[in-house]
Amino acid sequence: MLRDGKETTSSSELGRLLGFTDAQVRKDLAHFGHFGHPGIGYRCDELAVAIRKILGTDRQWRVALVGVGNLGRALLGYRGFVQHGFRILAAFDADSTLVGSTIGDVTVHDLGQLDEVLAQQRIELALIAVPAERAQEMTDRVIAAGVEGIVNFAPVTLTVPQGVSKVGVDLARELEQVTFALANRLSDEQA
Amino acid sequence: MLRDGKETTSSSELGRLLGFTDAQVRKDLAHFGHFGHPGIGYRCDELAVAIRKILGTDRQWRVALVGVGNLGRALLGYRGFVQHGFRILAAFDADSTLVGSTIGDVTVHDLGQLDEVLAQQRIELALIAVPAERAQEMTDRVIAAGVEGIVNFAPVTLTVPQGVSKVGVDLARELEQVTFALANRLSDEQA
Repeated sequence: MLRDGKETTSSSELGRLLGFTDAQVRKDLAHFGHFGHPGIGYRCDELAVAIRKILGTDRQWRVALVGVGNLGRALLGYRGFVQHGFRILAAFDADSTLVGSTIGDVTVHDLGQLDEVLAQQRIELALIAVPAERAQEMTDRVIAAGVEGIVNFAPVTLTVPQGVSKVGVDLARELEQVTFALANRLSDEQA
Repeated sequence: MLRDGKETTSSSELGRLLGFTDAQVRKDLAHFGHFGHPGIGYRCDELAVAIRKILGTDRQWRVALVGVGNLGRALLGYRGFVQHGFRILAAFDADSTLVGSTIGDVTVHDLGQLDEVLAQQRIELALIAVPAERAQEMTDRVIAAGVEGIVNFAPVTLTVPQGVSKVGVDLARELEQVTFALANRLSDEQA
């Protein structure tokens, strides 16, 4: 809406675009504060700022990548991260032929340097893109080095201590959204 | 639960594991049929079969990959797809040095052969892993060739005709789940 120069919007317009009822939009936003203006609705610029603050993307996050295989390289090249304030500042791999190389402007470090580099770069989030059988070990190590948030791309469920945030990215789950719609012959207008 | 040899479960146990109330679990399942048994709860094997049917993963899906860059290669190597019944049967790329090569057991075809190969292999779903500026064109072409479901990894919103199902995979959105939890100091026990 901001890109289109739109100044205000409403719960019903947001609901229509997102596939929710206007009541749900109002309820969800009310959970975080008061963002509307009587007789006006929401100011788009104010609402965008408020949502970024809610999502924690009103600032830059210092990110490290663990595992520089095909998926790791894809993550290093993913432009959407920078747009949302996620800066990948260091990468790590066990493959000695990769260590010391630079991909984009990110240097690949040896796993032996993990603690040192994470501390030096003040890394807050880690993307885990190693094989499933190494994922828990790598997660334990980055958390021990002070990382507070984990995004796990390995097809395994990780355990993290209380206070550390994690999300698992399951690519098959995304495909299931499509097959669900096809199997149930719903017309899926989302995403 | 099946792996652990568990025979029955309940709405409250499912809810606890999933982070929902038992009422929500009952309501969601009731939307699709009657799966419980009075005095027993859910039989795990029956429920697993029922959920696979709901999700459309009780069968094999014939999948093509469009774009064999780093992300495409990562998708070709992703073991979770096969586990969930997604078989990648063909890949396509514009890069003539890749065409004719085989990755895993999938052959990379020239984009010029798209229509022919999709028809011959009876492809139902396409994974779009090309640069953003090519994604809509590739989507239009695979849909014209009969593909019914699109999983888009390019950072752009695609338009598809009614009846075609699509989902956009936004990797930055996954990171936002983590920063949301950190920014709001929630303890996130999910995933």
